[in-house]
Amino acid sequence: MTSVEEGSSRPAGQSAVIDLLGVLAYAELTAFDRLAEDARLAPTLEGRAALARMAAAEIGHHDRLTQRLRELGVDVAQAMTPFVAALDAFHDGTRASTWLEGLVKAYVGDGLATDFYREVAAFLPQPDRALVEEVLDDTGHADFALREVRAAIVADPTLAGRLALWARRLVGEALTQSQAVIAEHEQLADLLIAGTGDLTGVARLLQRLTTAHSARMQALGLNP
Amino acid sequence: MTSVEEGSSRPAGQSAVIDLLGVLAYAELTAFDRLAEDARLAPTLEGRAALARMAAAEIGHHDRLTQRLRELGVDVAQAMTPFVAALDAFHDGTRASTWLEGLVKAYVGDGLATDFYREVAAFLPQPDRALVEEVLDDTGHADFALREVRAAIVADPTLAGRLALWARRLVGEALTQSQAVIAEHEQLADLLIAGTGDLTGVARLLQRLTTAHSARMQALGLNP
Repeated sequence: MTSVEEGSSRPAGQSAVIDLLGVLAYAELTAFDRLAEDARLAPTLEGRAALARMAAAEIGHHDRLTQRLRELGVDVAQAMTPFVAALDAFHDGTRASTWLEGLVKAYVGDGLATDFYREVAAFLPQPDRALVEEVLDDTGHADFALREVRAAIVADPTLAGRLALWARRLVGEALTQSQAVIAEHEQLADLLIAGTGDLTGVARLLQRLTTAHSARMQALGLNP
Repeated sequence: MTSVEEGSSRPAGQSAVIDLLGVLAYAELTAFDRLAEDARLAPTLEGRAALARMAAAEIGHHDRLTQRLRELGVDVAQAMTPFVAALDAFHDGTRASTWLEGLVKAYVGDGLATDFYREVAAFLPQPDRALVEEVLDDTGHADFALREVRAAIVADPTLAGRLALWARRLVGEALTQSQAVIAEHEQLADLLIAGTGDLTGVARLLQRLTTAHSARMQALGLNP
């Protein structure tokens, strides 16, 4: 693996920071999109407003990230562009067709992504570590989704099987797309391996992600 | 016309305030939806983020209005519900199919609606007058839309005719829906007539709206 990005005069560490800020900035933009779209599936005006409010919070995070990218002298669109295809493919491949599917996607999918980004952020220098941790802070969506999905499953237990299947599809698609991203961004892979120590460290990281994912599924009342 | 809403113990003035806050709260929610939808038509990531940011600002306005409704002891969903059908019909009937149509709709349609709500707000008691004026403040959308549409027409003058036609369709649909709303909400009509003095006052109000609308069309480079 190369330790310096080809065609770039930036040190490898900074390239990884910019990659992470870039992927997160675009992830927040797609999160906005998806929440705005799913808001329209809401069965009540309150639910619709709640999701719209969360979408708005994601844009606040997007702005914080793009502001930092500009501080680093980086073109924001250029930093996001390498991640557009993978993130769009993920969302296009897992478009929620019901209100509950959207909420499960938000809780399970965003939970997994957040855990992963948080692990990577731990290897970043300051102030970027603090910034990433800040924008990964939950916007209240997790609790809202958890409450709504649990209530729906209590009211109709037959939903559980279908939603568990949906959650497994989300995870499969997320793994496919994140492998594609890491394969194309060596400095992210380097950061991950250097940060965790070695491949055993990476395996332990994946184990932590899996454990947290199972806990979320159980909290929803779904078989992991 | 009745001066007190049937089945309500509120004075007529307060019913009109609640109606106006309710219609605006729902209008902000639909503005959020529409901006979020149109953001996906953006030709660049910057344009997409700009529209998403404006959508987020509308939710901030929505929150201010619903907070005031709760202060007045009003159920928020109940205050918005009477206006859902008319506003949804307007948006469904004028769904932008291109980025430029979305921007013209935002500039011309929102400009007209804002002018109208601002006229009505002038008849409200405080603190509601100040609140409505605050949430009607432009979120930067008008300038952005103006700049983008003008630049597009300069680059391709043949766009002007099609966009002018589109703007006329917007105004027609807006008039249809606002007449429907006012016909069903006598206290809003009463407020308008009492505020302007008489029907001549209403005619002058319509004249002011028309003049401002023509100015906006000309600013875009379109024939009113």
